[in-house]
Amino acid sequence: MSELKNDRFLRALLRQPVDVTPVWMMRQAGRYLPEYRETRQRAGDFMALCKNPELACEVTIQPLERYPLDAAILFSDILTVPDAMGLGLYFETGEGPRFRKIVRTAQDVDALPIVNTKQDLSYVLDAVSTIRRELNGRVPLIGFSGSPWTLATYMVEGGSSKDFRFVKAMLYDQPQVMHALLEKLSLSVIDYLNEQIRAGAQAVQIFDTWGGNLSHNAYLEFSLAYMKKIVNGLIREHEGRKVPVILFTKGGGLWLDSMADTGCDALGLDWTMDIGQARSLVGNRVALQGNMDPCVLYSSNESIRAEVETILSSFGSGCGHVFNLGHGIHQFVDPARAGAFVDAVHELSAKYHQ
Amino acid sequence: MSELKNDRFLRALLRQPVDVTPVWMMRQAGRYLPEYRETRQRAGDFMALCKNPELACEVTIQPLERYPLDAAILFSDILTVPDAMGLGLYFETGEGPRFRKIVRTAQDVDALPIVNTKQDLSYVLDAVSTIRRELNGRVPLIGFSGSPWTLATYMVEGGSSKDFRFVKAMLYDQPQVMHALLEKLSLSVIDYLNEQIRAGAQAVQIFDTWGGNLSHNAYLEFSLAYMKKIVNGLIREHEGRKVPVILFTKGGGLWLDSMADTGCDALGLDWTMDIGQARSLVGNRVALQGNMDPCVLYSSNESIRAEVETILSSFGSGCGHVFNLGHGIHQFVDPARAGAFVDAVHELSAKYHQ
Repeated sequence: MSELKNDRFLRALLRQPVDVTPVWMMRQAGRYLPEYRETRQRAGDFMALCKNPELACEVTIQPLERYPLDAAILFSDILTVPDAMGLGLYFETGEGPRFRKIVRTAQDVDALPIVNTKQDLSYVLDAVSTIRRELNGRVPLIGFSGSPWTLATYMVEGGSSKDFRFVKAMLYDQPQVMHALLEKLSLSVIDYLNEQIRAGAQAVQIFDTWGGNLSHNAYLEFSLAYMKKIVNGLIREHEGRKVPVILFTKGGGLWLDSMADTGCDALGLDWTMDIGQARSLVGNRVALQGNMDPCVLYSSNESIRAEVETILSSFGSGCGHVFNLGHGIHQFVDPARAGAFVDAVHELSAKYHQ
Repeated sequence: MSELKNDRFLRALLRQPVDVTPVWMMRQAGRYLPEYRETRQRAGDFMALCKNPELACEVTIQPLERYPLDAAILFSDILTVPDAMGLGLYFETGEGPRFRKIVRTAQDVDALPIVNTKQDLSYVLDAVSTIRRELNGRVPLIGFSGSPWTLATYMVEGGSSKDFRFVKAMLYDQPQVMHALLEKLSLSVIDYLNEQIRAGAQAVQIFDTWGGNLSHNAYLEFSLAYMKKIVNGLIREHEGRKVPVILFTKGGGLWLDSMADTGCDALGLDWTMDIGQARSLVGNRVALQGNMDPCVLYSSNESIRAEVETILSSFGSGCGHVFNLGHGIHQFVDPARAGAFVDAVHELSAKYHQ
């Protein structure tokens, strides 16, 4: 593997000094980029794109060609894991993801295998190694997975949900079945992320998109506990370098204190939390990643710069900040605004690292 | 007006002693009730139901006939105010609310009138007085309005939104236009709620459904500041009795401390915040209303009772708790489960009021 030319991202996650604040954007390889839409069209559909390592590599690199981003993130979907468990993932136009098999009973959970990543998800590992080769040390590559709770919501509801009625009924009425499902998912995610690390991922992020929809007690018991289990099961050093782990619960601002005690290296913040307050709360336990409202990218370059400055100054001087949006970049954003954002972070942050 | 037979709800909002914890459910007059669906069918459509005081009264009372609830809430829609400002509210099947006119520019905002409730929304006041008469002192009647920010999102987007791109672009690029719109909405809401109080509403709640989608700074400046202005403009005593004001920001758990300083009497909590922690945070400043996950009503009566007990014990002994769901009751809930919930609150809470 070639030497890493830009390691700001990894250093910031480990709260080491950097010259400027590193920045990447969740969903940076996405529909707002015309070149992404072109490749996706060529692939046929979204899952065909995920399953083709060459094309997945192509879209992963595309935003790096446009912007001086400090990290690349594997192009894939969080639902590859339940798909590999045999649920039959498919996408209906305008409907989002769906599963052919739905998990609702103890028998359904018993029948689920634990994922063997090398066997069942080799296309993801091929994408990781292809991307690492193509990056050639330019920036680090982030691997990722959905959190067990987030994956479970799709598996029990059968796809996206507005009300989470079936998965919450399982949680409250059959907590032991819910725990059995989350246990299988945790073991699968540990294997999945460790294989991504072995294939070349230099940091990993766990996306807990729906943890913020749980009550306080349910979040701790059914989402955070399993993310902690995963953190403790991960390879933390590879190729002679630490592999930082980032936890991101959308809507998790109320639980940062507990999240910081899981043993992870960094917490992703959505845009609702003041990052300075978050820093005071977590202290030296973890780095922070975030947290500009993705909607700011619908505003002018001047407004974007002003918001970037507000967040930088709220975090203040010193180590431990990776700049990002508080959620994925929206599909209708003008790519030039994303460029203004990335440039603003680098330009305006230098003074906080002197 | 007849003597109030059950004033638990009003007493709890003012942190006065009660025998058992009062309970009502957001959206308690709603589609989960077959009798509601029947009346709505008879009315023709949703807005026809809102605009017919006799039928609005009928659906307001329906849940009280089924359950021993401690409050009634005016049946209406939060978008009556922008409709009265001339935007032309309509509903498309399966699409949610829409406006014929959209507010996007300084000129659009300048052209908006401030609502004269007696003139423009007399059907709401007729509904309030009709319901008060029909309630005949059984329980107090709650009036309500959407928050200025929440109303503005619909007015600028032209209806419901997933990404709030236009209203957020206005907020970041034209903050003075946004403030002018929120100012007009605040004056309109003050008039609207004060007229509801004069017509018979015995408490009022401000629903800030979309405040939780703002960044920390934007929430304080564009949502909370205007709710505070409203609180300070309201009639706080009527018919010789205090008229409590409840603020409810969905997803507002991070901002409870600031919300408690607005001068309101109570804060509504969604289900993500631990109510005991919230109580420690707000101290004696305000009462708390909430906060069971509405999805618990998809589970068994035993699970419902267990969750009710968890919340009651987290709040602990003493005054200042109105039990509620953390958001509106879902349409697919079995009405029997709602009954189990209401009964559980009364039965299990007595021991906390000895």
